[in-house]
Amino acid sequence: MDVVPFGKPRAERADAVRNREHLLAVVRELIAEHGVEKVTMDGLAERAGLGKGTVFRRFGSRAGIFRALLEDDESRFQQRVLSGPPPLGPGAGPAERLIAYGRERIPYLLRHHAFAQAAAGPGRADVGSGISLTRLHVRMLLGEADVPEPDGLALQLSAALEGPVLFYLRPDAAEPAPGAEVSLVESWRTLVERVLIDDARG
Amino acid sequence: MDVVPFGKPRAERADAVRNREHLLAVVRELIAEHGVEKVTMDGLAERAGLGKGTVFRRFGSRAGIFRALLEDDESRFQQRVLSGPPPLGPGAGPAERLIAYGRERIPYLLRHHAFAQAAAGPGRADVGSGISLTRLHVRMLLGEADVPEPDGLALQLSAALEGPVLFYLRPDAAEPAPGAEVSLVESWRTLVERVLIDDARG
Repeated sequence: MDVVPFGKPRAERADAVRNREHLLAVVRELIAEHGVEKVTMDGLAERAGLGKGTVFRRFGSRAGIFRALLEDDESRFQQRVLSGPPPLGPGAGPAERLIAYGRERIPYLLRHHAFAQAAAGPGRADVGSGISLTRLHVRMLLGEADVPEPDGLALQLSAALEGPVLFYLRPDAAEPAPGAEVSLVESWRTLVERVLIDDARG
Repeated sequence: MDVVPFGKPRAERADAVRNREHLLAVVRELIAEHGVEKVTMDGLAERAGLGKGTVFRRFGSRAGIFRALLEDDESRFQQRVLSGPPPLGPGAGPAERLIAYGRERIPYLLRHHAFAQAAAGPGRADVGSGISLTRLHVRMLLGEADVPEPDGLALQLSAALEGPVLFYLRPDAAEPAPGAEVSLVESWRTLVERVLIDDARG
């Protein structure tokens, strides 16, 4: 409801945003129906009812599709952390928020690993755009909890949260045992409770 | 002092071992004097007083020199953990051994990162041969300490130990603040004390 002083550019931007959201929605449909492997520039153009040129200008390459998808999902995740309902969002204590963060983040990373591989090209996967989100968020909550060595602990706890996901998803890793995800979420809870609850006692 | 039933092959193997150890000692001298960058196949042959062919057959490539160096150092480190004096080696309690492991391992990884880059070639660094040593060792000590969720916690604590080293050493990372290494060792101690000491109370 702002006043729009230069109507045309604003309108174009809004179109571009809608266009992008439409394309990403179609990508999500294609992934749900056929898997990550089957998403191609041509298939996306056809399904979206757009010319190949439009899809190409938007994403540049197949990897670009997945980079856009990761950015979009990552920004939604950040919004939930920054301003969504507690305990993931603000309004709960630091230990409870850290536990909630791991409970959401571990399955998120597992789910997004295939996208990250497709975004990076063969042989390289980087689910890393979120690593600094995790580190900053953990650092902030450790500050609230007033633990000693918060900078070093923030690095170590972020690695504890995100490292094992990468371990399970290495190309040479053994198939994760059924329930690996649940087990990581549970041991993350144990870790956080022990590291933070000590302060409540001290 | 074993009986050597087939003297010739055993003698050749001993020669090969001495040869390898001599070459690695020369590599260490070259690194100490001129840095990792300046180690070349030709320089190594000249300094060792051997033909280029011998060095080539031994290591295959410059990266092969650093792979051999990493293997050798890693095996020495493992020996200290498996049978060296406590608290790094056996004979101390699990919390004390875990703290000692981090105190030795964090500087070890920082020191070896340049070798690992040289061993892997440009753009890829993998200080990873030791990651499974860390995980197995942490898992064993958590079992001794009888914590809950030892498998998940072993993955998470290994990542907590080794992940931050990689973070500081990423090509795009900011220069680590002076004392980063000390700070990681200190926060590792905090982490271990909190995760393990709870059981002594429980």
